[in-house]
Amino acid sequence: MADRIRVTVWNEFRHEKTHPRVTAVYPEGIHNVIASAIEGQPDMVARTATLDEPEHGLTDEVLAQTDVLTWWGHMAHHQVTDDVVDKVQQRIIDGMGLIVLHSGHFSKIFRRMMGTTCNLKWREAGEKSRLWVVEPGHPIVDGLPAYFEVPHEEMYGERFDIPAPDTLVLVSWFPGGEVFRSGCCYVRGKGRIFYFQPGHETYPTYRQPEIQQVILNAVRWAAPKQGTEVVFGNVKPLERIEVQE
Amino acid sequence: MADRIRVTVWNEFRHEKTHPRVTAVYPEGIHNVIASAIEGQPDMVARTATLDEPEHGLTDEVLAQTDVLTWWGHMAHHQVTDDVVDKVQQRIIDGMGLIVLHSGHFSKIFRRMMGTTCNLKWREAGEKSRLWVVEPGHPIVDGLPAYFEVPHEEMYGERFDIPAPDTLVLVSWFPGGEVFRSGCCYVRGKGRIFYFQPGHETYPTYRQPEIQQVILNAVRWAAPKQGTEVVFGNVKPLERIEVQE
Amino acid sequence: MADRIRVTVWNEFRHEKTHPRVTAVYPEGIHNVIASAIEGQPDMVARTATLDEPEHGLTDEVLAQTDVLTWWGHMAHHQVTDDVVDKVQQRIIDGMGLIVLHSGHFSKIFRRMMGTTCNLKWREAGEKSRLWVVEPGHPIVDGLPAYFEVPHEEMYGERFDIPAPDTLVLVSWFPGGEVFRSGCCYVRGKGRIFYFQPGHETYPTYRQPEIQQVILNAVRWAAPKQGTEVVFGNVKPLERIEVQE
Amino acid sequence: MADRIRVTVWNEFRHEKTHPRVTAVYPEGIHNVIASAIEGQPDMVARTATLDEPEHGLTDEVLAQTDVLTWWGHMAHHQVTDDVVDKVQQRIIDGMGLIVLHSGHFSKIFRRMMGTTCNLKWREAGEKSRLWVVEPGHPIVDGLPAYFEVPHEEMYGERFDIPAPDTLVLVSWFPGGEVFRSGCCYVRGKGRIFYFQPGHETYPTYRQPEIQQVILNAVRWAAPKQGTEVVFGNVKPLERIEVQE
Repeated sequence: MADRIRVTVWNEFRHEKTHPRVTAVYPEGIHNVIASAIEGQPDMVARTATLDEPEHGLTDEVLAQTDVLTWWGHMAHHQVTDDVVDKVQQRIIDGMGLIVLHSGHFSKIFRRMMGTTCNLKWREAGEKSRLWVVEPGHPIVDGLPAYFEVPHEEMYGERFDIPAPDTLVLVSWFPGGEVFRSGCCYVRGKGRIFYFQPGHETYPTYRQPEIQQVILNAVRWAAPKQGTEVVFGNVKPLERIEVQE
Repeated sequence: MADRIRVTVWNEFRHEKTHPRVTAVYPEGIHNVIASAIEGQPDMVARTATLDEPEHGLTDEVLAQTDVLTWWGHMAHHQVTDDVVDKVQQRIIDGMGLIVLHSGHFSKIFRRMMGTTCNLKWREAGEKSRLWVVEPGHPIVDGLPAYFEVPHEEMYGERFDIPAPDTLVLVSWFPGGEVFRSGCCYVRGKGRIFYFQPGHETYPTYRQPEIQQVILNAVRWAAPKQGTEVVFGNVKPLERIEVQE
Repeated sequence: MADRIRVTVWNEFRHEKTHPRVTAVYPEGIHNVIASAIEGQPDMVARTATLDEPEHGLTDEVLAQTDVLTWWGHMAHHQVTDDVVDKVQQRIIDGMGLIVLHSGHFSKIFRRMMGTTCNLKWREAGEKSRLWVVEPGHPIVDGLPAYFEVPHEEMYGERFDIPAPDTLVLVSWFPGGEVFRSGCCYVRGKGRIFYFQPGHETYPTYRQPEIQQVILNAVRWAAPKQGTEVVFGNVKPLERIEVQE
Repeated sequence: MADRIRVTVWNEFRHEKTHPRVTAVYPEGIHNVIASAIEGQPDMVARTATLDEPEHGLTDEVLAQTDVLTWWGHMAHHQVTDDVVDKVQQRIIDGMGLIVLHSGHFSKIFRRMMGTTCNLKWREAGEKSRLWVVEPGHPIVDGLPAYFEVPHEEMYGERFDIPAPDTLVLVSWFPGGEVFRSGCCYVRGKGRIFYFQPGHETYPTYRQPEIQQVILNAVRWAAPKQGTEVVFGNVKPLERIEVQE
């Protein structure tokens, strides 16, 4: 148990309570669907946290016990306090993994980590999407086919205003004519970040096996490594210095 | 004149007014030394802006007329208003270049664009530094030798908490035993960012020809390209969509 | 004239002589269409070279006078001698630009520079392709729209077995359901390499203004920079070394 | 046993037989020192292969059973047959890991995978080297300090003519005044490649715990992932295509 990857599944959890169409798809909330998939893995353990909990459920204690944080939000990004964003950022720098899902592209924490607007094109037409693997040796696509489809999704299209990913793993095709960098890996500080495009709230995308597989693979990829200790600040020289006048 | 690169040289301009040792080195202020070098170029024109001017000298009008912004700050990073940082960030996303100098690594705007702490090791011992070119075909090192030295500098050492540069151009050697990624290129939005390590306020580093050459080359590299128009938001499909139930 | 970018447009020039359908589209040869576009620019000068010329038209003298080499080949990649490939590789390392077009993905020189198979999926169905700009600030897309279409093209689809591009500029959408990294930038040695997907021999792709614009922009981007001198081999220390026993 | 990472430790094994100074340091051969370190791990199993064995010890059967190949060579790079290099390249593309050690920078297989000359500066003065971690969250530096030293090493200095690493993990400092990108990660095809600078044959570098730790970490990092199946060649469309005349 002690060696399991500790995942905190964060969800805004508003659409599910206020939009009947979303309630119908995710009566238990998006977070509980994702957490269930994680709990089914022998090497992971999940907890959930939501916007309306005190400190959005992300207390110092919870963050300290989180190896990987997944993030879904949409209508209330602005209600996440800057204080919590500051703490999550520092935890990522210190090694915590972050998996940003779908409309989380506009979350404060993703924009904070990217330094850009994270803006994009979008369309809600219920069209399908096809995700192509462009890096077939990457652990995030372990066990997946060369491409897979989501039957109904919101379209996200380029230009996606992100820094060029450290590794681009997936590119999506949409019937309406667009493409999108839909699986993007970053390293920031000691932490790893993965952005994954699918997951509109009106479709049961997170119940789809391929989608769950990518998220589970991403949890393993983003789990903190031991790495090295990091030392900052004023230091003495390691060698004798001779300063020339 | 209309086609010249319009450079705004920003300087905190506090050390020069309060620290006699710095006043002795830069009586005219660091910004005026850099601006003079730029003004000497046929393809550039410079203006300066400093912290204590209204809006730090970075009004909407000034920013709109700036192609490349250079940034030196140290003791008063926190006094730069978030409103100005927001505007500078947006201008970079829209294509303005940013050249961050030395202790500007801890500036609000650089940390904003990087998404990390930008922390590092440091030591003020007056030791020299030797900057090695690791990308000899890069325009930022046009006309420079395979390495060059700064006689007296503050040491900055790894770990430097930045995203891995899109292009790493220079790596520094210090006599005390450290190394540092001292010339780092990034693209963010349509804008280009260059971080350049040398420039401690107590040494006449910005008067050194090689240092000026790197800054001038970086101005040319970071100058906005025409590029393409960027469209965000809700869009209609470009192809006929057939949605399967 | 002396300051113009000297472009050598290389073409296998076999299809045009043996396939009537190709002859009809490019009676003058693909190379001459591209060379004409280059000759129309005030800052460029073009020459052509083809497979069946002595040394494939790439003598030491020609290579020494080439700033940027463009490469189209398809049915006779294996007939390019290794000796010429060796020389072109060295010129790239020394700073010459290389623009690889369409089926040139399987050329000896591109595979040599990439280190991978450069294999991909393909289909000849005359379908259109839509090229999306993912890096809107990049000089290779200067003046282009956010996307542009080629009315009829061979489909190339992922997985494209290349090293992750240093900069990915364009991603293509195909009606048959595929995506492709269709504009890829690399730096190798002091040289710059651009791979550009469109250009099947049975369609007049190289007569299309947007395609010509990308190639012209790529020539400017790939033109050699002065950079720094490169020193290799055995060297004396720059500092006094004290070896501890 | 079946799940262990199968490592083949390749060594030129000439210096050890012909240079008394090297024989004194590595009487058993460099390969056996590295293989012993690997054999001491519960998750790895090692075999060795050397230049003078038939097919250099790298038969089809051996390669098929190799998850990660480590490579040390120096005086006889040219004696490695192109046929074996071809096979090793294909295995890497298919997912095998490759760890290139020290003077292996000039091996046929490393130059093949890089596409560049892999040239550098060097000096044999017995000086120490200090390796700085620039990516402290990377698994290749798991459990290592922020820097570590090799008491006596051959100096390798920049410019190192390699493609910019996909991830730069280590940068070395040398007392004589040079720096070097000494720990470089690449992905090529489905395979992972790590170049690691230390290991001159006249010093017992491979007996040093930190060096062994990096190699063991690199073996785990480079071990093949399942990834996805890769499909190349002519394909049918996945969607109905309407071609416009």
